[in-house]
Amino acid sequence: MTARRRGAATVGRVADFPTDPWVLTERGIDLDALGRGESLFALSNGHLGLRGNLDEGEPRHLSGTYLNGFYESYPLEYGERGFGFAEDGQVVVNVTDGKLIRLQVEDEPLDVHRGALEEHERSLDFRTGILTRRLIWRSAGGHRVRVTSRRLVSLSLRSVAAISYEVEALDEPVRIALQSNLQANERQTHSTDDPRAAHGLQDTLKPCLDKANGKRVVLAHRTRNSGLAVAAGMDHVIEQDGHDASLLVASEEDFGRFTLSTELAPGKPLRLSKFLAYHWSGQQTVEWLRDQVDASLESARDEGFAGLAESQRATLDRFWTHADIEIDGDDELQQALRFAMFHLAQSSLRGEGRALAAKGLTGTGYDGHAFWDTEAYVLPVLTYSVPHVVRGALEWRHSTLPLARERAAELGLAGATLPWRTIHGEECSAYWPASTAAFHVNAGVAGAVVRYITATGDEEFSAGPGLELLVESARLWRSLGFHDDAGAFHLPGVTGPDEYSALVDDNVYTNLTAQANLRAAVAAAERHGEEATALGVGAEERAAWQAAAEAMHVPFDEARGLHPQDAAFLDHQTWDFAGTLPEDYPLLLHYPYVLLYARQVVKQSDLVLAMHVRGDAFTAEQKRRNFDYYESITVRDSSLSACTQAVLAAEVGHLSLAMDYLREAAFMDVRDLARNTSDGVHMASLAGAIIAVVAGFGGFRDHGGELNFRPRLPADIERLAFPLTVRGAVLRVELADGQVTYRVDGEGSITLHHESERIEVTADAPAVRPLAQWPGDEAPPGQPAGREPGVVRADGSDAHRGAGSRRSSGA
Amino acid sequence: MTARRRGAATVGRVADFPTDPWVLTERGIDLDALGRGESLFALSNGHLGLRGNLDEGEPRHLSGTYLNGFYESYPLEYGERGFGFAEDGQVVVNVTDGKLIRLQVEDEPLDVHRGALEEHERSLDFRTGILTRRLIWRSAGGHRVRVTSRRLVSLSLRSVAAISYEVEALDEPVRIALQSNLQANERQTHSTDDPRAAHGLQDTLKPCLDKANGKRVVLAHRTRNSGLAVAAGMDHVIEQDGHDASLLVASEEDFGRFTLSTELAPGKPLRLSKFLAYHWSGQQTVEWLRDQVDASLESARDEGFAGLAESQRATLDRFWTHADIEIDGDDELQQALRFAMFHLAQSSLRGEGRALAAKGLTGTGYDGHAFWDTEAYVLPVLTYSVPHVVRGALEWRHSTLPLARERAAELGLAGATLPWRTIHGEECSAYWPASTAAFHVNAGVAGAVVRYITATGDEEFSAGPGLELLVESARLWRSLGFHDDAGAFHLPGVTGPDEYSALVDDNVYTNLTAQANLRAAVAAAERHGEEATALGVGAEERAAWQAAAEAMHVPFDEARGLHPQDAAFLDHQTWDFAGTLPEDYPLLLHYPYVLLYARQVVKQSDLVLAMHVRGDAFTAEQKRRNFDYYESITVRDSSLSACTQAVLAAEVGHLSLAMDYLREAAFMDVRDLARNTSDGVHMASLAGAIIAVVAGFGGFRDHGGELNFRPRLPADIERLAFPLTVRGAVLRVELADGQVTYRVDGEGSITLHHESERIEVTADAPAVRPLAQWPGDEAPPGQPAGREPGVVRADGSDAHRGAGSRRSSGA
Repeated sequence: MTARRRGAATVGRVADFPTDPWVLTERGIDLDALGRGESLFALSNGHLGLRGNLDEGEPRHLSGTYLNGFYESYPLEYGERGFGFAEDGQVVVNVTDGKLIRLQVEDEPLDVHRGALEEHERSLDFRTGILTRRLIWRSAGGHRVRVTSRRLVSLSLRSVAAISYEVEALDEPVRIALQSNLQANERQTHSTDDPRAAHGLQDTLKPCLDKANGKRVVLAHRTRNSGLAVAAGMDHVIEQDGHDASLLVASEEDFGRFTLSTELAPGKPLRLSKFLAYHWSGQQTVEWLRDQVDASLESARDEGFAGLAESQRATLDRFWTHADIEIDGDDELQQALRFAMFHLAQSSLRGEGRALAAKGLTGTGYDGHAFWDTEAYVLPVLTYSVPHVVRGALEWRHSTLPLARERAAELGLAGATLPWRTIHGEECSAYWPASTAAFHVNAGVAGAVVRYITATGDEEFSAGPGLELLVESARLWRSLGFHDDAGAFHLPGVTGPDEYSALVDDNVYTNLTAQANLRAAVAAAERHGEEATALGVGAEERAAWQAAAEAMHVPFDEARGLHPQDAAFLDHQTWDFAGTLPEDYPLLLHYPYVLLYARQVVKQSDLVLAMHVRGDAFTAEQKRRNFDYYESITVRDSSLSACTQAVLAAEVGHLSLAMDYLREAAFMDVRDLARNTSDGVHMASLAGAIIAVVAGFGGFRDHGGELNFRPRLPADIERLAFPLTVRGAVLRVELADGQVTYRVDGEGSITLHHESERIEVTADAPAVRPLAQWPGDEAPPGQPAGREPGVVRADGSDAHRGAGSRRSSGA
Repeated sequence: MTARRRGAATVGRVADFPTDPWVLTERGIDLDALGRGESLFALSNGHLGLRGNLDEGEPRHLSGTYLNGFYESYPLEYGERGFGFAEDGQVVVNVTDGKLIRLQVEDEPLDVHRGALEEHERSLDFRTGILTRRLIWRSAGGHRVRVTSRRLVSLSLRSVAAISYEVEALDEPVRIALQSNLQANERQTHSTDDPRAAHGLQDTLKPCLDKANGKRVVLAHRTRNSGLAVAAGMDHVIEQDGHDASLLVASEEDFGRFTLSTELAPGKPLRLSKFLAYHWSGQQTVEWLRDQVDASLESARDEGFAGLAESQRATLDRFWTHADIEIDGDDELQQALRFAMFHLAQSSLRGEGRALAAKGLTGTGYDGHAFWDTEAYVLPVLTYSVPHVVRGALEWRHSTLPLARERAAELGLAGATLPWRTIHGEECSAYWPASTAAFHVNAGVAGAVVRYITATGDEEFSAGPGLELLVESARLWRSLGFHDDAGAFHLPGVTGPDEYSALVDDNVYTNLTAQANLRAAVAAAERHGEEATALGVGAEERAAWQAAAEAMHVPFDEARGLHPQDAAFLDHQTWDFAGTLPEDYPLLLHYPYVLLYARQVVKQSDLVLAMHVRGDAFTAEQKRRNFDYYESITVRDSSLSACTQAVLAAEVGHLSLAMDYLREAAFMDVRDLARNTSDGVHMASLAGAIIAVVAGFGGFRDHGGELNFRPRLPADIERLAFPLTVRGAVLRVELADGQVTYRVDGEGSITLHHESERIEVTADAPAVRPLAQWPGDEAPPGQPAGREPGVVRADGSDAHRGAGSRRSSGA
């Protein structure tokens, strides 16, 4: 019997994630799914992110330590280059790894492959923000130790992470050696051809400085192409009863190590507190950065692990007060929603003027790039819980405007074209039909700007960055589109959210969100006349925006009674769903764009998304008919889709279907439904799960800055409660017992609409209304065969996998 | 005064090309335009091509020796790869250079940079097929020599080229050394970012064998990736009065050299005949290839330069009998048309089952790839002059069907999808919207198949390769398209000929040529029932093709009375021509596709091309209106456009405009109108010039296999005569003196239509008819500002350049 088999036999090959409302726990360890755990258990504060790697560093899928905005660039290759193709790619850098703590027990390394792992458990507590690992390991030589490590990335000290590592001899005294490392330019073993994964670069960091002093090591590096400098440091505090340990500290160019060796008596654990600090800059010297690292380390040591943990808890308590969604009747869903909200919080709270990437700081998926989904999916959630974080994120967008203006000019357009994917602000996509042509990025940002301003009343932002973002986007729309002979305004040659169509005319989502953008720009320019004038906005330009908005063409097929996704969409043949095998999904990995673009097949909500964010532009009947139709051709090869389908399913009355989609969105990562959680968690799908609850079952819409609710509770849910922060007050909405209660925490009143009734709610005067009765869900629309929503089953399988088996067996 | 300035002063910096009906002569040498001369004076036989490099090899733009089908492959790079993207590129290889003959005069190298070039003239004779170079050079040391070299690539011995190099002392005895080289893996100094130029690879050839023996050297190499082997050999014969020369022969891996040194007395020239032979293979050993080279060299030596020259003349005499177009009244045009026909002949006559590349074998432009223009532009000309050559070219297409079937399957389509660009048969384009989506390649090939079969009556081809090409393409159309609810058949998501639109629905050119393809497939399957059955064609499939063809949707805008180029084309805004500067053309180098695709701007004839090749599908009134409209938005950033505009301009009655376009097409290379003749001559534009004459002024159409003529003579032309080979006989058409004469050379009769009259012509009974009177050209349509046809002026400038100057000066 090999050591590995013994270990496997002891803790089970497949990890178990028990249901718990506030904690995600993994019992055992699945060596074939290490990557998933690394993403799920990643810790971050929006500035610094650590993947949930094992303390000892190996085995691993991908080691990761990321700093928001810290990237390397590389030239994009083209077999055939065209004018305006993006020049350089950017990729998030795995900076110096400080998570590493290696343990030797009587000359034998603690390694989950070796000896026997008698217990192994990792748990992430959403209230404390601490990742705890507990294990009992018996070495091949028969020595048993218990290790307890706790890890946090501080929400109070932005540059700091800390690890408490405790090791205890269980049966007899054992000699141990602990090595606590800093390692730069880690080799990654993992590689893939999946276009959604990351671009691997090696030896990105040029060494600049390495210093060892006391129990502290600081390393500084600079990226080779982008020229960014980073300094990383570690310091240590040892708590041990009994005799002294031997200590050694050393540094090399890419490496720092603190070593401790001692003999442990049973019942007398040794605890090592390890403090990490990271600072980076595009301008400052490495000496400056080293000073900052040393200062941060000193602050962290002064707080100590306990102090940092206490601040962490306090910060999260405040967060949850404004953000917690309570759902009774589905404990798994409750856990998944808290997991989602926790990741949204930790990926953004200390972002402070940097981008929110599609994977946060949890992995290298999509090269660490931020996309339109930040503004379209993530910010709508954060706007109503931590609005100051949204301001920071929008200020990042605003800071990229000079690059976006340059890009628009290069493309022969006015205003600014925001990039499809980027870290620093330049367009980084090497496939222009799905990126440069996706002008709707601008509309999504404009929508987030408007939402943030109405929800907060932040006049300073409104007159400054907000105005400029709206204006430059309005200019883009005007130059991109044109009035036809009959006066209608068209936006030709664009790509909407659905990536299985491209270069279409009058994409309904794009046209409607651009229309909102144009109107908002007019209103903002009128409200902030002086600031608008300073931006060169005159009466002619305002009038032109107004005219374009009012004349905006929204194609509608009278004969079919449907909105086409774009002008020609319904003229195409429908995808051959019957001839498509389950293993042919996602379609983009098995069919060429030339076929996908010319067929009616929808990767992700597009027209349906338009019906959510511009629901005011559709009648109830149109929504119902459109939803049913697009449901039949939407394959959800994107994780951005299920949540929006949940929202519209709920609106048109398919509550059980909405519940299925909510669960798919919420379980995307904890059940690894897309099989790529190892690249990082799906931030927009996590946000989407919250949206599915609040906009779906809460029936919340904020069109035109009004707070509208059409709440409806599905059969499975007993009670649903969520808070919305609006202009400093907190509106608490609770659905239970056939009624909905609107309450206010804080000063002043909040005006809202319940169904068609206008209600003013104050702290003293909550409103209670009966929930509208829904006639029931008699005929929910069907999906393409095998693409039914991923109903997660007790055995951990999901519909995609299940459908696959069914189809293969001929059913 | 430097040697270079002296040389330059002597012969002039700008070369002069005097008008001559049968010879293209360059007097003097323009060191800044060496590349143009290398392309214009390139020699080829369709199997082997030598660029017109100077004998001494330098200075040069690009040295080139090409073997049709001999390529290297390399992986195509993508910043973002998608399913079905082409994997590998292919690039024509500059194989072992045997053109090199270097002369030393009293220890000083003959170099056009040094000493004084008192005379320098190169002339290409279209009847002899020989490139002659005459020069008188005075060395810096004051020694004068006359050099006369003659070069040919044999049309009788396919693997052989020969050079006669004569050197003579003019004033006093001089010691000379001649070095005749074979050089593999030549370093090229030239590089460019222009996407239309070639992909440079270095050290492509791995040495396999080098042998020196007598005056002969043979080198053999193998490409690194594609694994093709090539053997090249040279042999020499010396003719000299007087005393013996010292001789030396040597070989290295990449190099072979024959050296001769002697003293020349004035009036006693030395003549060296150099014979070259090339053989290549993907299967055979280098030893086999070496044997073939030695055998070919022996045959060449046995024929001698004079013998080879005699065969060359005889072959070309036969060719001209079937191909010469006579035009009286415009000597420059006469010369340009003969130049065009000569290049068409030499690029194809011994192609024998290989592709005809866009640049023939005259340069590395477009990596040496063949495109759709071979079948759409070049083969229509060759079909009526050297039909056996067309069979060879179509057999090459047929030989690629297995690869094209694989490609179709990869794309999820039936039948075969022929590549946009290739050497060996695999798709090599790294930009799919303008390649994979350009399914019209199949229709162009089908059209060429039908034309060849009707013009020759080749039943063997018709029942074999022809049938299979038609069937596999028909299968493609059926799987690509669909019948809508009303029954109409659509082809969605395609790219037509115009590269400033892409991924459109129902491109009229594509739909109409696909319709012809479908009909031809039905007819061929019925005519060759047994063979069709063997290909799996049954009644259901034939009926489906027939139904698709009859229901083929051809969009027409009733309100505007125009055919849109594609379904949505006329719904787009027109390009901002007024805001486009002359230096912004070609647009593709200054604007992104995202803008070009969404605007009404036409790179090259598309709807107008449809009106030529499917003229039977348009009324005269539609042609007139369409032509006028598309004329106003066509910028001719492609050399494939002017000729088609000439054809339709002539048809709708704008004869003077047609003449301008004919001249632009004809002078494309001899005047270097596109500024890239250095990459190789524009084979399709050369063919287009012939088409402009025969289809334009001859009014010749072959819709449905009928020979229709509506001849009209522009004012500038006194007489126009051209032959058409039809089923073994030669129909001679002559326009002069207000009448047209139809004559037949050979047996049998030819039935034709003149205007609406059906006429049968035999050798004994020519037909003479008056030319229809044309009301005159009162209102020719306008072009976008600065994009008027390139009227070539006496000073060698063209409209593009002229327009540029005019626009820059504010006019």
